[in-house]
Amino acid sequence: MSPITIALDGMGGDFAPQAVVEGADLARESFPDVRFLLFGQSERLTPLLSDYPSLMAVTELVNCQDSISNDEKVAKAIRSGRQSSMALAIDAVKHHRAQAVVSSGNTGVLMALALFALRTMPGIDRPAICTSFPTITGRACMLDLGANIECNANQLVEFALLGEIYARIALGVKRPSLGLLNVGVEQVKGSETLKTAARTLESLSQQNRLEMDFKGFVEGDDIGKGTVDVIVTDGFSGNIALKTIEGTAKLLTHHLRQSFAQNFLSKLGYLFARASLNRFRDTMDPRRYNGAMLLGVNGIVVKSHGGTDKIGFAHAIGEAYQMVKSDIQTLISHEFSQFRQGLAALSSKDDGQTDSMAMGI
Amino acid sequence: MSPITIALDGMGGDFAPQAVVEGADLARESFPDVRFLLFGQSERLTPLLSDYPSLMAVTELVNCQDSISNDEKVAKAIRSGRQSSMALAIDAVKHHRAQAVVSSGNTGVLMALALFALRTMPGIDRPAICTSFPTITGRACMLDLGANIECNANQLVEFALLGEIYARIALGVKRPSLGLLNVGVEQVKGSETLKTAARTLESLSQQNRLEMDFKGFVEGDDIGKGTVDVIVTDGFSGNIALKTIEGTAKLLTHHLRQSFAQNFLSKLGYLFARASLNRFRDTMDPRRYNGAMLLGVNGIVVKSHGGTDKIGFAHAIGEAYQMVKSDIQTLISHEFSQFRQGLAALSSKDDGQTDSMAMGI
Repeated sequence: MSPITIALDGMGGDFAPQAVVEGADLARESFPDVRFLLFGQSERLTPLLSDYPSLMAVTELVNCQDSISNDEKVAKAIRSGRQSSMALAIDAVKHHRAQAVVSSGNTGVLMALALFALRTMPGIDRPAICTSFPTITGRACMLDLGANIECNANQLVEFALLGEIYARIALGVKRPSLGLLNVGVEQVKGSETLKTAARTLESLSQQNRLEMDFKGFVEGDDIGKGTVDVIVTDGFSGNIALKTIEGTAKLLTHHLRQSFAQNFLSKLGYLFARASLNRFRDTMDPRRYNGAMLLGVNGIVVKSHGGTDKIGFAHAIGEAYQMVKSDIQTLISHEFSQFRQGLAALSSKDDGQTDSMAMGI
Repeated sequence: MSPITIALDGMGGDFAPQAVVEGADLARESFPDVRFLLFGQSERLTPLLSDYPSLMAVTELVNCQDSISNDEKVAKAIRSGRQSSMALAIDAVKHHRAQAVVSSGNTGVLMALALFALRTMPGIDRPAICTSFPTITGRACMLDLGANIECNANQLVEFALLGEIYARIALGVKRPSLGLLNVGVEQVKGSETLKTAARTLESLSQQNRLEMDFKGFVEGDDIGKGTVDVIVTDGFSGNIALKTIEGTAKLLTHHLRQSFAQNFLSKLGYLFARASLNRFRDTMDPRRYNGAMLLGVNGIVVKSHGGTDKIGFAHAIGEAYQMVKSDIQTLISHEFSQFRQGLAALSSKDDGQTDSMAMGI
C-alpha cells in the first residue's frame, strides 16, 4: 500500500510548532502509512522533531521562514504571504507532493490561500467549511461554517451535495439525512433563497436523483437533537450556530463544575461518579471533533482549531487521512457530474414547478 | 397603589387553558396588585377558575369562542382570527383595558396580530422579539429572535436601543453593555449592514449619546460567556442562535443523565450531589427565562413558550408585570426621542465618517 502524504503547516495555531509536532507523532501511531511534509522554521522544528525519532523517520522538513500570524489580514496574506508555511503547505497539495494539508492557522487566510492556489472544483461555485460534532443520537455535520457570508439557492444546493458526501465518510452513513437550517416563526419562515433551495432538493429527491434523504427545513434545536445527519446553511448562520454550541457547552459545564464544587456532599458525589462523568467529558470533548474541511476546492484542506493541543491536532490529521483514504475528491467529482445530469433532466421535464432555471443553472 | 391589569390569552399554548389558569394563580401570589382579563371559552375556563377562588377574585373572564391553533397560518389569522382569544386580549391593551398581554399561542400570529392592532411606536421602524437567558456571568438579552428575517442597519441600531432599555429593566443593569452578533472569520467579517450599524453606534457612543456601553462585534460563543448584556442581531440569526442554545442544552443534559445512569457508582454519586445538581438544573431551567417581549409596538406584548407549564407561564406574567411597573413604554419613547436628536446632531457635525445619511435617517 502506497503511503499517504499530508502537508502540515508547522507554524499555525496558538501552540505551534509544539502542538503540530506532537499531534503529528500521535497521528503517526494511529496511521502507520502516513508520511508528513512539515513546513516551517527549521531552527524551531528540528529540535522538536529530534525528540520524536519515529516521526522524524516519516517526515520531510521543508524550511521556510515566513509564517501567517493569527491576526494577519487576508488581503496582506494574499499579497505577501505566499512563502509562508501555510501557503507552501497548500502548494504541496497543488503540486501533488501531498494529498492533503492541515493547518491550525488563521481561518480566513487559510481559506483565501487555498481558494487562490487550488481553485474550486469544476461545476462548483463556492467552497464551504464543514465539520462534525456530537448530537443526542450520535454525530452530525454542518456547512457552511463561515466561508460565505451570503449564499444563493444554487450554492446551498451544492453545499447539500458536498455535505452529503462528507457525512457519508465522516459519519459512515450510507444515505445521509439532510435539512436546511431555517427559523421557526411562521410569518418569516424562509427567505426566498431557502425556499428555492428546498424546492430544488425536493424535486431532485422525488426523482430519486439524490443520494440523500432530504428532510426539508430544520431549526436550531435540531442541531443538538441530531434530527438530521447534515445541516446546510449559509456561512453567517452556520458560524453563529457552531460558536453558539461552543459557548453553550462552556456555559453548562461551568455551572455543572460549580455545582459539584458547592459542598462536601456534591464533591463526594463527583468522586463516585467521576469515571462516568469522564466518559461524558470525552463524548463532548471538542478535540475529538477537531478538523473542519474546506469542501469544493481541488484538494483536501483541513482547518484545525487554532487553540487546540496535540490531541486535537492529531484528530485533524485523522480527518485529512480519512478523506484521502475515502477518495472524497473523486466522490465529489462523480456526484456533481450526476447532479448536473439530474438538473438537466429536471429542466427538460420542467412543468413550471421546479426551480433549476430560477437558480440560473 | 392602582392595580396592574394583564390580559391573558386563555386558549394559547400546548397546555391551555390549564397552564394559563394555574400560572395566573401562581403569579397572583407573587404580585398582589395584579388583576387579570382572561379571554377564552367560558365553558372551559369557568370550571378551572372555580378551583382557584383567590384568582377568580382578581380575574374578569371574557368569553370568546374563537381561538388560534398552534399551526394557524398568519394570513388566515389576520383575516378571520379577529375574534379569537389572542386578538381580543391584544385589543384589551389597545383600548387601555389592560396594560400588557401574555400569550403562549402561535408566535407568528401573535406578532402579526399585535403589530396590526398596536402598530409600531413613533420613530420605530420594526418591532423585535427579545428575551433573556442564563450565561456564565449571569444573564443576557438577545434580539431580534424572529420578528424580522432580514434587517437593515437602521433597524439594527433601533434594536440596540430597544435591547438596552429592556436589559436595564430585565437584568437590573444601569448601563448595559451591548454587542452586534457577527462571525469570526476575518475574510467574511461583517456584511455592510452590520458594519454600518456598528459605525453608527460607535459614533453615537463617542459623543456620549448612548446610555449603553457599545462593545462592537461579538460572536456566537460570546452569548453563553456573557461577554455583553445585550446581543443584537437580525431575526434569522437570532432565532437560530436561541434554538441552538436550546438544542445544545438538551444535548448536554441528555448525555449527563446517561452518565449518571451508567452504573452503581455513578448513581450513588448522583444521589450525593443531587441537591447541588438540582440547583444547577434550576439555574438552567428554561421556565425561569420564559417570556419574550415584542419590543417597539404600542403596548406590552409578552410571548410565552407554547410548551411551557404553569411555572413558565407565571414567569411570563412576571415579565409583563415587571415591564408595566418599570414603565418600559415611556422609557422607550423618551430614549428614542433623544436618539433622534443625537442622530440629528451627528448629521449636522458630519465629517463624512458617520453613517446617519447612509442609513436613510
